[in-house]
Amino acid sequence: MIENPFYSYENHGPFEFYSLGDFKLEDGGVIPNCKLAFNTFGELNETKDNVIVIPTWFSGTSKDYEAYIGSDRALNPDKYFIIVINQIGNGISSSPHNSPDPISMSNFPNVRIADDVRAQHQLITEHLGINKIALVVGASMGAQQTYEWAVRYPHIVKRAAPIAGTAKNTPHDFLFTETLLEAITSDPGWNGGNYRSHTEVADGLKRHANIWAVMGLSTEFYKQEKWRLFGVESLDEFTNGFLQPLFQSMDPNNLISMGWKWQRGDVSRITDGNLEKALERIKAKVFVMPIDEDMFFPPRDCEAEQKLIPNSELRVINSICGHFALFGGEGEYYHNQIDTHLHELLES
Amino acid sequence: MIENPFYSYENHGPFEFYSLGDFKLEDGGVIPNCKLAFNTFGELNETKDNVIVIPTWFSGTSKDYEAYIGSDRALNPDKYFIIVINQIGNGISSSPHNSPDPISMSNFPNVRIADDVRAQHQLITEHLGINKIALVVGASMGAQQTYEWAVRYPHIVKRAAPIAGTAKNTPHDFLFTETLLEAITSDPGWNGGNYRSHTEVADGLKRHANIWAVMGLSTEFYKQEKWRLFGVESLDEFTNGFLQPLFQSMDPNNLISMGWKWQRGDVSRITDGNLEKALERIKAKVFVMPIDEDMFFPPRDCEAEQKLIPNSELRVINSICGHFALFGGEGEYYHNQIDTHLHELLES
Repeated sequence: MIENPFYSYENHGPFEFYSLGDFKLEDGGVIPNCKLAFNTFGELNETKDNVIVIPTWFSGTSKDYEAYIGSDRALNPDKYFIIVINQIGNGISSSPHNSPDPISMSNFPNVRIADDVRAQHQLITEHLGINKIALVVGASMGAQQTYEWAVRYPHIVKRAAPIAGTAKNTPHDFLFTETLLEAITSDPGWNGGNYRSHTEVADGLKRHANIWAVMGLSTEFYKQEKWRLFGVESLDEFTNGFLQPLFQSMDPNNLISMGWKWQRGDVSRITDGNLEKALERIKAKVFVMPIDEDMFFPPRDCEAEQKLIPNSELRVINSICGHFALFGGEGEYYHNQIDTHLHELLES
Repeated sequence: MIENPFYSYENHGPFEFYSLGDFKLEDGGVIPNCKLAFNTFGELNETKDNVIVIPTWFSGTSKDYEAYIGSDRALNPDKYFIIVINQIGNGISSSPHNSPDPISMSNFPNVRIADDVRAQHQLITEHLGINKIALVVGASMGAQQTYEWAVRYPHIVKRAAPIAGTAKNTPHDFLFTETLLEAITSDPGWNGGNYRSHTEVADGLKRHANIWAVMGLSTEFYKQEKWRLFGVESLDEFTNGFLQPLFQSMDPNNLISMGWKWQRGDVSRITDGNLEKALERIKAKVFVMPIDEDMFFPPRDCEAEQKLIPNSELRVINSICGHFALFGGEGEYYHNQIDTHLHELLES
């Protein structure tokens, strides 16, 4: 366990905790008293069929989805009971940096996408008493969890909208994530994950941020100086003044835990590696929503999977921000596209 | 100066040397007894108008272009006198690792694309007595030099074919190259450029190779297991068995020198930063030849420049190998495309 002021309730709240008890993981580890942090919007109706579940993305928290939710949005808390659930390892739910011995820091066990979804399923069914989900929607690693929900619990999930993510991670994406992780673990301050403060890994976290700067956006984003969308006045301010300090405030073990999980996202683990069979299990109506400029979850990878999902459509989101469009840099232009598709999906 | 068996005549020959004397650089440095290594194919005709100049790419040498040249190719030594010139810093021409004090290793001065082209101009005009070039063609950093040739010496260059490169480097490309360089300089073995052997920087060079694996190819390349094109049997063999050992055999200071140069490629330095004015200077007929899957010199960046060149056409090369198509992994499929365009250009 280690102190890190970034993961405060002030920064990322509101949220509440649900304890899963001792949570057994696919790869054999156990998280004792495993805690999921979640935030809810709106009210559960009497028939308990107005539920929307939203899992978080790499390095993100429930806070990041606030811009997606509102009375004027498809994700409308006046109509729906919306549950945003922080993935294990994100620094808010049970994570390397906030777990006590014997699973603290570098001893945190390997967690898979399916572990998160099983944990979320326990929260939804046992704690909240819900057995039908109107929509699971999430971006990036949130999309990986969305797919896992639809494949693993086909009779619970009525609709699904994976944004900018895949059901089975691609080899290219694995290699990309590896460079993100190597940027951190190559820092002598990393010390095998046993640093005294995340600040000792500042150089590695900076390089991690710089690789994000290359792959997270688009060539055109920089050419057109669209970093202005993020409220900065120069490229230097975008990288040195925004991206680098953002990632430098995070916990390295948390990022490594999530990155390891991301690399191995694969819904076909329950069908012996047969992706067709896994995606055929889906009963939900699915809108597959890649972002046109995404450099590592490109539309063609998402489209290849969409074609294997029985009741599905491809809905490409346009954004010069590439993958980081999900941060909402393009404001209403982005959110209106998301809303249009989600409105249609929710009304179908 | 440091020993490095990779840069041997055996590996990269044949080539011969031309000494420029003390060569003054744009950024203020001097390379005493600066040597350009070059290789020629075919014979100079009597009217001295059958000359083709080919500058090298990042980490590449004159050897790499052998597959582009042949009696059955557009670059035909039976018709043309072809001069392939190794860029400064590539380990064959004057470079950090092979230069004596006071410019050895980390003391090697900053070299720009324009320095290379001025040096090549001296070789071509003073040493070889040539005043007309039928074609300048080069890939990647070779394309940067090709553009610089056409802009700087418009009355000498009759045709130009920049493959997979830009006239002015983009901000995104700058950031990408920065991650390649950081991968090396973050290695404690780098020691500010003052290692005793390149093997001390093996970890950094491995990370450098891994970033190339992400950006140098394409998502689809990996999905379709097209690493088989490179004669390997697995993804692991492609990265750990091919790319990593390749870059680990190179000199870190050489790569840093070329990377610094690549980042700052910009033909508009002679027109006070006005790219339109710079490209308008070109008298050559130009075929701009980006590769469709290139992740850092994408067709749209190349097309934007092509539109500013008076007598030019866009000719997109198709290859699932992305930027590394230039290594010829797709064999005849790639070379036939290059040949088709170059044939037409040479006959125009």
